[in-house]
Order: sequence, then structure tokens, then C-alpha cells
Amino acid sequence: MIRFSVFYPAADGATFDHDYYRDTHVPLCVETWHPAGAEIDKAVDGPYVAAVHFTFDSLEVMQAALAADGTAAIRADVANYTNVEPVRQVSEVVVP
Amino acid sequence: MIRFSVFYPAADGATFDHDYYRDTHVPLCVETWHPAGAEIDKAVDGPYVAAVHFTFDSLEVMQAALAADGTAAIRADVANYTNVEPVRQVSEVVVP
Repeated sequence: MIRFSVFYPAADGATFDHDYYRDTHVPLCVETWHPAGAEIDKAVDGPYVAAVHFTFDSLEVMQAALAADGTAAIRADVANYTNVEPVRQVSEVVVP
Repeated sequence: MIRFSVFYPAADGATFDHDYYRDTHVPLCVETWHPAGAEIDKAVDGPYVAAVHFTFDSLEVMQAALAADGTAAIRADVANYTNVEPVRQVSEVVVP
């Protein structure tokens, strides 16, 4: 299993619309990419104001999903909820 | 649901023993804290070499878990698998 995480760093002047993110942006990602799972993090404490974790069955499945035409619309939608430059991480999920 | 994530930044000279982390350190955390879930991230690409995500039923349950006496032994064990200073994040898990 692969986890594709996107983190939004907290910073002075950073804006983030959590409602839009939950109700519009992440659902758009799910409809476009069909991940195995999707969970949002709304910060309580730490360096990020928010994050999202998508899981995919494999790296190949993830890469094919992100290559969808709809990814351009997802990128264009980011300005509708934040002015933060996101940080991306791709990892293999390991169960201890 | 609360997610407690610990991220290990990648850097020149950073060391990280993924086997020890999976087989010894994270199991020690699970035995000590009894989280609702625990998953490790082994980096494929991004700013972190590894991460772990523990979930707890609430912030209060998490705080009580981390206050356990065994947390000192967990902290002392970090030097056995990495020389990296970890980054911690606490978030509310939101399902889109």
C-alpha cells in the first residue's frame, strides 16, 4: 500500500478554508483519482495547519491516478482554499 | 479520532534503521500507549525518510497514553535507530 500525503505548513499570513477542503477539494480528488482511502488531518498542534493522506494499492496505481486529466482542475482549485505552498510525501505503508 | 504523527526529516548524514523501527521501536510504542491504530511510512519520495501515525479515540486518551511511565524508555530508544530530530504533529482526523 502506498500513502500519498500532502501537508500544508502553518505560517504567518497562511490561510486555509477547512470546510471547503473537506466538502469540495478532497471530494474532487477522490472522484478524480479513486484512491483506496482518503483522510484529512485538521491540525491541533504542530507545524502543519492541515494535511491529507490518500492510499493507493501500489505506486503504479497511484501514478496512473495522478496522470488523469482531472489533476489539472485539482491543481487549479488549490487557490480556492489556501495561499500555502503544500509539501508532498509518497511512502510505502508498513504495519508494525 | 486523533492522529499523532511523528516525521523524520531526510537530511545529509541522516541515519534511520527502518528494520529496528518496525520490529522494535514502534511495537514498544504500541505496547506502551495502546493506540487505536499504528502505521509506519517508509519514504519513497519527499522531505521525510520515515514517519509513524498513531490514532487515538480522543485527545484526552492520547494525552493519558503519552503520560505513561514507559514514554521515557521510548524517548531513550530513539538513539538506537536514528540521529534525526523528529517533528511531531497532532491532528483531528476528518473523513471527507
